[in-house]
Amino acid sequence: MSSTPSTPSTTNPLTIVAPEGVLWFDCVREFDAPVAAVFDAHRDPEKIRQWLGPDGYEMDIERYDFTSGGGYRYIHRNPAGDEYAFRGVFHVVRENELAIQTFEFEAVPDVVAIEALSFQDLGGGRTRVSIHSVYPNQEARDGMTQSGMEDGMTQGYAKLDAVLAAGSATEEA
Amino acid sequence: MSSTPSTPSTTNPLTIVAPEGVLWFDCVREFDAPVAAVFDAHRDPEKIRQWLGPDGYEMDIERYDFTSGGGYRYIHRNPAGDEYAFRGVFHVVRENELAIQTFEFEAVPDVVAIEALSFQDLGGGRTRVSIHSVYPNQEARDGMTQSGMEDGMTQGYAKLDAVLAAGSATEEA
Repeated sequence: MSSTPSTPSTTNPLTIVAPEGVLWFDCVREFDAPVAAVFDAHRDPEKIRQWLGPDGYEMDIERYDFTSGGGYRYIHRNPAGDEYAFRGVFHVVRENELAIQTFEFEAVPDVVAIEALSFQDLGGGRTRVSIHSVYPNQEARDGMTQSGMEDGMTQGYAKLDAVLAAGSATEEA
Repeated sequence: MSSTPSTPSTTNPLTIVAPEGVLWFDCVREFDAPVAAVFDAHRDPEKIRQWLGPDGYEMDIERYDFTSGGGYRYIHRNPAGDEYAFRGVFHVVRENELAIQTFEFEAVPDVVAIEALSFQDLGGGRTRVSIHSVYPNQEARDGMTQSGMEDGMTQGYAKLDAVLAAGSATEEA
């Protein structure tokens, strides 16, 4: 690839659509990397640990079994040491294509969203990730979208750009 | 119990709330049986086979692991032999209290709802089951609520009344 996705000036934008008064939000982000690499960075807990979450957070992954019928639990820890635990199960995972999973922030127990992540091969070594997330009630949806989610995702995906660029450089070496 | 829940005249009503233009619907149904019995009739595949689904349907259960992280797949077969397959995973199951699960009708692949079933002990050997079901889009929600769901659930819960009454009679015998 001639592009250098870890350089900020080439960062692809994150688009979030979260209308008022609905239970869903959508996110779209493109990556300058092949779909297999982007999917693998969502599947491999060692890679997820390197990118998921806001800048400055550490991530402990208790479980990350990115397969149909599998599940996950991880803890984000901010620089002050505050911990935020998340868990879910995977309804379906299809390689390089789709994952549908539940999502629970354990501080708000039993309020469980469902997320569909689509991985689309754009050709030319580029990939689009689309997320459709649906919450059980308006308070939960609004709480999520107003929680600093956009900053956290933007920062996380910039780290993912770097993970993908490093993987590409390793393959080319 | 002095009541005879398998007698039609004592059937508790099914209440469905499904406003237009929202992704959710709610169902509430009370049962003249203790919460442990109602929960068990949702957990035990041998019991589920006796009540889930409309009158006249047969049910093949491929898997029914009603535990946190478990999953299910079953097939309903109508008298004409048409088959309808459903599958999902259980995000959480807490005995006599709560189940949160995904739900997919395989004829509409990758359109996955999330359902929260609450089991509430009303005292006096009575139980309320509340279901909050959320769909990823309006077409899917409307397709479900307009699919004969109310008749199917009403018939299924009448069968569940009979299963519970039979279980109660066995215990008393």
